[in-house]
Amino acid sequence: MNEPPPTRDRFRHFAPIATRWMDNDVYGHVNNALYYSYFDTVINRYLIDVGGLDIAQGETIGLCVESHCRYLSPLAFPMELDAGLRVEHLGTASVRYGVGIFARGQEAGAAEGWFVHVFVDRGTRQATPIPPRLRDALSALVVAPPA
Amino acid sequence: MNEPPPTRDRFRHFAPIATRWMDNDVYGHVNNALYYSYFDTVINRYLIDVGGLDIAQGETIGLCVESHCRYLSPLAFPMELDAGLRVEHLGTASVRYGVGIFARGQEAGAAEGWFVHVFVDRGTRQATPIPPRLRDALSALVVAPPA
Amino acid sequence: MNEPPPTRDRFRHFAPIATRWMDNDVYGHVNNALYYSYFDTVINRYLIDVGGLDIAQGETIGLCVESHCRYLSPLAFPMELDAGLRVEHLGTASVRYGVGIFARGQEAGAAEGWFVHVFVDRGTRQATPIPPRLRDALSALVVAPPA
Amino acid sequence: MNEPPPTRDRFRHFAPIATRWMDNDVYGHVNNALYYSYFDTVINRYLIDVGGLDIAQGETIGLCVESHCRYLSPLAFPMELDAGLRVEHLGTASVRYGVGIFARGQEAGAAEGWFVHVFVDRGTRQATPIPPRLRDALSALVVAPPA
Repeated sequence: MNEPPPTRDRFRHFAPIATRWMDNDVYGHVNNALYYSYFDTVINRYLIDVGGLDIAQGETIGLCVESHCRYLSPLAFPMELDAGLRVEHLGTASVRYGVGIFARGQEAGAAEGWFVHVFVDRGTRQATPIPPRLRDALSALVVAPPA
Repeated sequence: MNEPPPTRDRFRHFAPIATRWMDNDVYGHVNNALYYSYFDTVINRYLIDVGGLDIAQGETIGLCVESHCRYLSPLAFPMELDAGLRVEHLGTASVRYGVGIFARGQEAGAAEGWFVHVFVDRGTRQATPIPPRLRDALSALVVAPPA
Repeated sequence: MNEPPPTRDRFRHFAPIATRWMDNDVYGHVNNALYYSYFDTVINRYLIDVGGLDIAQGETIGLCVESHCRYLSPLAFPMELDAGLRVEHLGTASVRYGVGIFARGQEAGAAEGWFVHVFVDRGTRQATPIPPRLRDALSALVVAPPA
Repeated sequence: MNEPPPTRDRFRHFAPIATRWMDNDVYGHVNNALYYSYFDTVINRYLIDVGGLDIAQGETIGLCVESHCRYLSPLAFPMELDAGLRVEHLGTASVRYGVGIFARGQEAGAAEGWFVHVFVDRGTRQATPIPPRLRDALSALVVAPPA
């Protein structure tokens, strides 16, 4: 818990996230589970826009097998957020992403987490090598792990 | 069901809505219930930004007592949307909003609905007159009902 | 708004609904949009269990084209709820459901609404007659409209 | 990833979780983020029912500071689930829960995770010792960490 918050320079791609009224829970802040919806939004939007992922018909789809989040400072509707994305490990059929959630205009992250996708065949749900275009997109976000 | 879709000129205020991965249901489109989360997002953001609503501490809060939506054409993540807002009826303690949901760049709405807020005292939950600043903000969005 | 709350005898089928922590909004009650998630849960569960709807592979799927809710008394996590279901109109390719949401043990409904499904071919998304088994299931819930 | 799935005997308390239509994502399974909504539902329901937590007015509230989930086998609406709960570490002001998600009738878990609450004063949001009744409730769920 003593690690410092992540900074924006640690990420390679950003997507804006708009909070919603419903995101706030009874304590007035964004519910912990919804951070993960920000994670899979920035990830899948990148895979679609840059990697050519076809979520409706494509043969290869990414399934989440593990996820993690560390909540550092509260967020709340109606804040505007940015989600930062990087790739921490790129395997044959899997990828581990690092994600940071930032309040718009803030340098220090409000949350950071990671998320592992295993790519599978849509029909058989068996692991399958990441297709070339998707791999190129993911490669562009690879960072060295923090020292 | 034969009414034409709403057009952007029918609304007085717009807010951007970013779809999320989780918004899509098993049939590949934004789930019907989530349109209402777009409704209360555009409404509450306007009440906060322009009307001075304080959702954390304010004495007066708005509770939804009735809502309606007509779904005209499908929406799906990762589309970018705009929510249009107008006021269809402004009473002493209540307001009926009209809302239209538009795909970014489209003139014809993908959905339209309405939503009624009754303003109440946070503690007693009894109806209370709309405070002046909030009333001014709402008045600015009043439109004549469609002929 | 002066109509009395619905009572349980007005519905033909019930499903339990368990509230979730995340359902409560910043004002401490179930968010208005989530009532519609209760609606489509009781409806689809019935269609699957009794009507043989196959949401993963079936040729015919039901799309929501219109929905409505009137909120009568507040609900909140961790309450246990029951959703009551009836069929108010059964057409060739569409059905209008009536839904009531009840706190467990209460006779008067906390909310009531309606919801219209149009059945379409999964591929073409064109309206298609309701298949016989599904129609039988829906017919069993038909009630005369309230006088 | 080679650890075996958790079994029910590893948990001390269970709560039923009913899936919802909206839980399924476009790939036909419960969305990864919603597992965390199951986590905070079983946790908070226990804190309320057994520990006397008052989420609306109580002085002490629990905020999530870290969470984790490992997804082992798919779940989907309309399945009925059970969430298993244990306490893995009980500190002065914080608690680490272990959670397992099981399909009804299955012995092997479909997911397992953990979740850390820090208890704070509602007003100041400063960490505060866990109140006695809540501590008693949490103590009853403490298990030795797996060897």
